[in-house]
Amino acid sequence: MVAVAVSTDEIRLARAYLSRVAEPPAAALARFVAEVGPVEAAELVRAGEVPSGVESQTSARRALDLAEQDLEAAAKVGGRLLVPEDDEWPRWPFNALAIAAANGLRCGLEPLALWVRGDAHLATITERAVAVVGSRAASGYGQHVAGEFGFGLAQAGITVVSGAAYGIDGAAHRGAITAGGLTIAVLACGIDVAYPAGHRALLERIPSQGLLVSEYPPTHTPARHRFLTRNRLIAALAEGTVVVEAGQRSGAKNTAASTAALGRVLMAVPGPITSVSSSGCHELLRSGIALPVTSVAEVIESTGRLGVDLVEATRNTDTGPPQGDAMRVFEALGLTFGHSPEAISVESGVELSRVRALLPQLELASLAERAESGWKRSQDGSWRGDT
Amino acid sequence: MVAVAVSTDEIRLARAYLSRVAEPPAAALARFVAEVGPVEAAELVRAGEVPSGVESQTSARRALDLAEQDLEAAAKVGGRLLVPEDDEWPRWPFNALAIAAANGLRCGLEPLALWVRGDAHLATITERAVAVVGSRAASGYGQHVAGEFGFGLAQAGITVVSGAAYGIDGAAHRGAITAGGLTIAVLACGIDVAYPAGHRALLERIPSQGLLVSEYPPTHTPARHRFLTRNRLIAALAEGTVVVEAGQRSGAKNTAASTAALGRVLMAVPGPITSVSSSGCHELLRSGIALPVTSVAEVIESTGRLGVDLVEATRNTDTGPPQGDAMRVFEALGLTFGHSPEAISVESGVELSRVRALLPQLELASLAERAESGWKRSQDGSWRGDT
Repeated sequence: MVAVAVSTDEIRLARAYLSRVAEPPAAALARFVAEVGPVEAAELVRAGEVPSGVESQTSARRALDLAEQDLEAAAKVGGRLLVPEDDEWPRWPFNALAIAAANGLRCGLEPLALWVRGDAHLATITERAVAVVGSRAASGYGQHVAGEFGFGLAQAGITVVSGAAYGIDGAAHRGAITAGGLTIAVLACGIDVAYPAGHRALLERIPSQGLLVSEYPPTHTPARHRFLTRNRLIAALAEGTVVVEAGQRSGAKNTAASTAALGRVLMAVPGPITSVSSSGCHELLRSGIALPVTSVAEVIESTGRLGVDLVEATRNTDTGPPQGDAMRVFEALGLTFGHSPEAISVESGVELSRVRALLPQLELASLAERAESGWKRSQDGSWRGDT
Repeated sequence: MVAVAVSTDEIRLARAYLSRVAEPPAAALARFVAEVGPVEAAELVRAGEVPSGVESQTSARRALDLAEQDLEAAAKVGGRLLVPEDDEWPRWPFNALAIAAANGLRCGLEPLALWVRGDAHLATITERAVAVVGSRAASGYGQHVAGEFGFGLAQAGITVVSGAAYGIDGAAHRGAITAGGLTIAVLACGIDVAYPAGHRALLERIPSQGLLVSEYPPTHTPARHRFLTRNRLIAALAEGTVVVEAGQRSGAKNTAASTAALGRVLMAVPGPITSVSSSGCHELLRSGIALPVTSVAEVIESTGRLGVDLVEATRNTDTGPPQGDAMRVFEALGLTFGHSPEAISVESGVELSRVRALLPQLELASLAERAESGWKRSQDGSWRGDT
């Protein structure tokens, strides 16, 4: 470890350069930076004086030093570069990456820096965050659920993390914005790139209610491998990930895999089995790696602090039908005309003495009443369930 | 144990009497019958010379000996009484009841006799059987799924067991009938009672493609406690139970509980979380006691014999996208015009020597081709996935 006192500006400039010189995830470069520090690492990469692993990751772009231009381009759209040396760095969420890396998992690489756009404080707004992700080719059902979940989570003070894609992602962001809450879009391109083009307005809006976040420097265009690399950051920044809809080849399945690998709570929303849009979710549920969630309350319960966020049971809490012999006697009561205790005993198969004991109890429970001809069901207390 | 040689007719007559004298489940009477045998038990019950537990279960109806009339009424509709002494008795399925009873579970009581209607052999057609159950207040989605599952299971040679109710049950029976397969309706009333009335035609049809089965003697009308008592037989006669739709108070949840208590495979079909008809299924899935199933193949896999009925993975089995550096190089290829290896190296961040090595590999995989200006994506081999 080379201990040199460097100003934050120098570090930021060095990391800006490093963030463009290698295509993430670049494990060898990350190790090298951790070893010699970002400023020294940047100088050595520029000079080509690096170990062979780092060389192969940086040789293609090492002459391309756009650090100052990138910082300016970010500033021009209201963005900035966050570095691990900043207070705002999401140290706690990224802990999961460090643990995964220690276990040799590829998804466990912490970014060298993060380009962000918006005024929010990243570390603060990820203290309580849930990712809501899914297919671009979402159904109306999926978009409805994503919007409701985004809205409900944001309303509960939870930041909604997603990937700004068409379909589920967009609906989740919009839900959070509508609730007046916070949302983070983690991009697979520069924070100044309007991708997808149809989400230009959404991407312009998010910085006023959260953050655009990207590992890629300004002007970087998205590519498939960047979506996959990006997905680990969505999983890491959130306490749990809800997959709302996912087809068989949806990238959301990749985010789901990262979520599970990072030890975060993975949730999936059930849907019609007749819909291919839900098939990926059902696969996650069937394999047992995802928990089914059907409401915002269940998502909060599943990701929340024990004892604080327990969901109210959806179970009906009324006292329900009479049980055992009482139920039999109740069923044997006349609907219109009263029956004698003897007739009720034969009909119900409950012995006469017990019938005589139970009838007044049913009367007290407003389930039975005395009629001229005997006992019948009470008019206002009748109980009916779906059998 | 009193060892007396008795003819099958005598046993059948005795059990017919016993099947009406006590309202099932009558544990004390069952124990008494097991102890002294059915013929002796019937005589002692008639005479009122029984232990007090049996007395309380039988005193109300002991004078009501309709055994011969009941057997005649059954015969009149093409029915008969099955007794445990018959070869046709579903000994193997009812084993689960015996185990549950040994564990003190109320749902573990074997019936004293079974009234059946139809020509099929009960023990044979329950060798491979799956129950498909659910709400009476089913949605169009639920009825569609129940029909498809009934059809598919029957087509696979599996008997479809259900409860003949409106909604899910009816759709499951009809699916099996349409497939030309076998189905069993376990009733909460006599086999000669058309309940529900709107299923009269269905109930008349089932005996030609399976069986109506009931623990209750002819003319017995249904009552709520009888549905609950009946549900354990649905669970016991099938290797597993699929709950297609269930609201919060659906009787299907009771069948589900019996299925789990009897150690049988419990399955639930996911549905839209916006549908109250699926809320019971989601509760079962969320609690972890039910396995999600989305197709007939998955039901067969979940209930079937290991290694024989493995479902084909629904996963797409093509080779998928190129991985790692190859994917990056592929993404950096021109779409229309070719790019130089140097440009591809900068764009992809993959070092030049590796780009040069990978391009011919991508060409071999029909993913890249040489153009005049360099390398571009192959026209016919382009790969696109949903990110």
